[in-house]
Amino acid sequence: MSERVVVIGADAAGMSAASQAKRMRGDDLEVTVLERGSHTSYSACGIPYWIAGDVGSVDDLVARTAEEHRANGIDLRMRNEAVGIDMDRREVEVRELDGSGADSSRGSTYRLGFDHLVIATGARPRRPEVPGIDADGVLGVQTLDDGERFLDALQSRRPQRAVVVGGGYIGIEMAEAMVTRGLSVTVVTRSPEPMATLDPDMGRQVHEAMEGMGIDVRTGAVIEAVETSADGWARAVVTDAGEFAADLVVLGTGVSPETELASSAGLPVGRWGGLVTDLQMRVFDAEGVWAAGDCVESIDLVSGNRVHVALGTHANKQGRVLGTNLGGGYATFPGVVGTAVSKVCELEIARTGLKEKDCDAVGFAYLTVRVDSTTRAGYYPGAQPVTVKLVVEQRTGRLLGAQIVGREGSAKRIDTLAVALWNHMTVEEISALDLGYAPPFSPVWDPVLIAARKAADKVRAGS
Amino acid sequence: MSERVVVIGADAAGMSAASQAKRMRGDDLEVTVLERGSHTSYSACGIPYWIAGDVGSVDDLVARTAEEHRANGIDLRMRNEAVGIDMDRREVEVRELDGSGADSSRGSTYRLGFDHLVIATGARPRRPEVPGIDADGVLGVQTLDDGERFLDALQSRRPQRAVVVGGGYIGIEMAEAMVTRGLSVTVVTRSPEPMATLDPDMGRQVHEAMEGMGIDVRTGAVIEAVETSADGWARAVVTDAGEFAADLVVLGTGVSPETELASSAGLPVGRWGGLVTDLQMRVFDAEGVWAAGDCVESIDLVSGNRVHVALGTHANKQGRVLGTNLGGGYATFPGVVGTAVSKVCELEIARTGLKEKDCDAVGFAYLTVRVDSTTRAGYYPGAQPVTVKLVVEQRTGRLLGAQIVGREGSAKRIDTLAVALWNHMTVEEISALDLGYAPPFSPVWDPVLIAARKAADKVRAGS
Repeated sequence: MSERVVVIGADAAGMSAASQAKRMRGDDLEVTVLERGSHTSYSACGIPYWIAGDVGSVDDLVARTAEEHRANGIDLRMRNEAVGIDMDRREVEVRELDGSGADSSRGSTYRLGFDHLVIATGARPRRPEVPGIDADGVLGVQTLDDGERFLDALQSRRPQRAVVVGGGYIGIEMAEAMVTRGLSVTVVTRSPEPMATLDPDMGRQVHEAMEGMGIDVRTGAVIEAVETSADGWARAVVTDAGEFAADLVVLGTGVSPETELASSAGLPVGRWGGLVTDLQMRVFDAEGVWAAGDCVESIDLVSGNRVHVALGTHANKQGRVLGTNLGGGYATFPGVVGTAVSKVCELEIARTGLKEKDCDAVGFAYLTVRVDSTTRAGYYPGAQPVTVKLVVEQRTGRLLGAQIVGREGSAKRIDTLAVALWNHMTVEEISALDLGYAPPFSPVWDPVLIAARKAADKVRAGS
Repeated sequence: MSERVVVIGADAAGMSAASQAKRMRGDDLEVTVLERGSHTSYSACGIPYWIAGDVGSVDDLVARTAEEHRANGIDLRMRNEAVGIDMDRREVEVRELDGSGADSSRGSTYRLGFDHLVIATGARPRRPEVPGIDADGVLGVQTLDDGERFLDALQSRRPQRAVVVGGGYIGIEMAEAMVTRGLSVTVVTRSPEPMATLDPDMGRQVHEAMEGMGIDVRTGAVIEAVETSADGWARAVVTDAGEFAADLVVLGTGVSPETELASSAGLPVGRWGGLVTDLQMRVFDAEGVWAAGDCVESIDLVSGNRVHVALGTHANKQGRVLGTNLGGGYATFPGVVGTAVSKVCELEIARTGLKEKDCDAVGFAYLTVRVDSTTRAGYYPGAQPVTVKLVVEQRTGRLLGAQIVGREGSAKRIDTLAVALWNHMTVEEISALDLGYAPPFSPVWDPVLIAARKAADKVRAGS
């Protein structure tokens, strides 16, 4: 007898789950996917590049269209929003939204029964709670629909000045995109340096690279209000460090799990507001309910704590793991180590594991090293500067985290350290690793190895 | 009471050992280094780029000059060749060579006593045993002195045609260097594809890239003789697949450990002719004798066997480990996993662990997967093709080896797999790794993860 699966959300996690389960169980599973937006299976991470004009068409960001999913036997209902979950009757209440731009509170509703429910509702941009934050012209960059709104605004209002609130990777990528579009850009961030996923000593280099691109960077500044013009459109961002004129305001203050629907239904959310699942992506204490993607919390394999990391790569993996289990197979998503890479102009930025502040928060005593080296042999044409920082547990020498900032060829070196972290390696062990060496790719001591060696010396010295 | 150390060989391993020991024990250690050549602490791996003209000066390849080493208190004797080791009297017999070009069998000799002997004699190019192989114009590329001979020959003889014997990484790099210099180049190799450190299916791509550069590649061809002109200079290479005119012949047939001196003194060498040491780089059964670099064998951490891998990165690490122990500290060189990267024109080539043939030789039952992907998100400008091949143990799913061939941004991805290999990870575990993802650096599923996922599926299917 076939089972009914309802999936809420048709982006990476939801569609990976639906596709994988359907692939494994075929007609044995009736899969309905509800999506309130207008796009499926897209790369949200590509939005800044689309806005910058580096990616020609929105279609390039769509991995698989609604039609392709339907051809695989999935009942995909676009512009159908799940507005309630009835756990007792095991039904989802759905509102059919009209064409784009319709008031989502109108439209008729219907109910859909399920044997299995998959929650893949994603995340939403955090909005600082200040006056004017909901004004027109204050834009998040989370969905392709957001991206379309952004491009519409660029076209219709010909903005000259943009203010980005928040200096995280989305904020920085958007700042660069708008510089590329010819706007003058100010980034306002409350942290001491932009890119607060790095320690400030490493964030400093990001700060300098941004200034090098002509971006006005204001650190330690707290937003107090968005001022609007007579037509209700944003006009300026007011902070405790002054007021900045803005024809567009971009929210780059990070995202929160979109779990209102789930928590209203009594499903368990964690410290960061994300759904809490087991290793197979089954929501705890909720028979037949699954979740994956930006709406869940994951285990941080370094500290053992739950964390919320909204990244397409995790969403895809979790969705696939979920679909495999739902499809009768077995797979687990063991957790994350906090790896992230990004780019501002020519500067590559990477991190994994815990930064200094994180260590303090979870109770690790640590030491750090920071080394400057080059991406290739110093004598080889095109060798570029790279800085590697390691955060290491005192006494044991266990790697706790790493950060890399440098020019071309720097960022993906973080993967080496991410795998080391995953395997609980000490810096002494890391310094012996057999990494690829040839003059076009690395100095004879890879920067990662130099850093590990120096850290091991420091651990031994007991400092 | 100070101890006397004699080091034979002043390149990476010998000078790393000498410097580290001296740094740790200072005046307590009298360190004498004997070097028969004219250069210290240089990057032999850089020679092809120097010959190509990408590296301006030989000085760029020298990490530390003789004068700098002497300033650190090391008694460095250039053009002094160790010609005998007397283990009973614990003395080295040394010949003072005259200025460059002198007949090394002349010159006066002296004896030097030691408490500790460090053998860092490196490797020498393998010469196929065929008539004419010792002719003028048949050149190895192992030392800076070799490189100088090469550049002299380019200048004095204005060669038009070069034949490279051997299609390994040195052969390929030299072929490219000579193409850059305007020569027409033929590469003759006995293996079915060039780059025999890869499986033939991956080597095929290297073959095509070489042909794309205008290199004439002859595979499955065995050299039979080098023909010479009246003046004794090489004129052609004769193989079982025809004769190839040559104004220069380059030996790219790999290297063998330079251990004649050591084995004459009764020191133990292994299956590949390299000295066999413990984890601290002490030669077995020879009190006070140490060895490091291209003249030693290492433990292959995948198979457990001893292997000979001549690479600057190992020489540097082993030298440092040796020096640390000799200096009264503690360090080990646990072994290698067989990582190597290289480049031919725009094609990046990487490998780690065992290839199919290696698995057969050591007794692993394996399966393989090969996937084609891109170095960046497919929609991101500059995304390049990359092929990843994994060799995986049947049943357990343990990674045994990996090969990567692709365009810019491909090769250093091998490090991720090298660390996975080091930690005995299975492909199922690897497929869950938290690797850096952002559109400029990777598709949302990194090529490495896709390959691991497909391999895990195959292991599960039991095929």
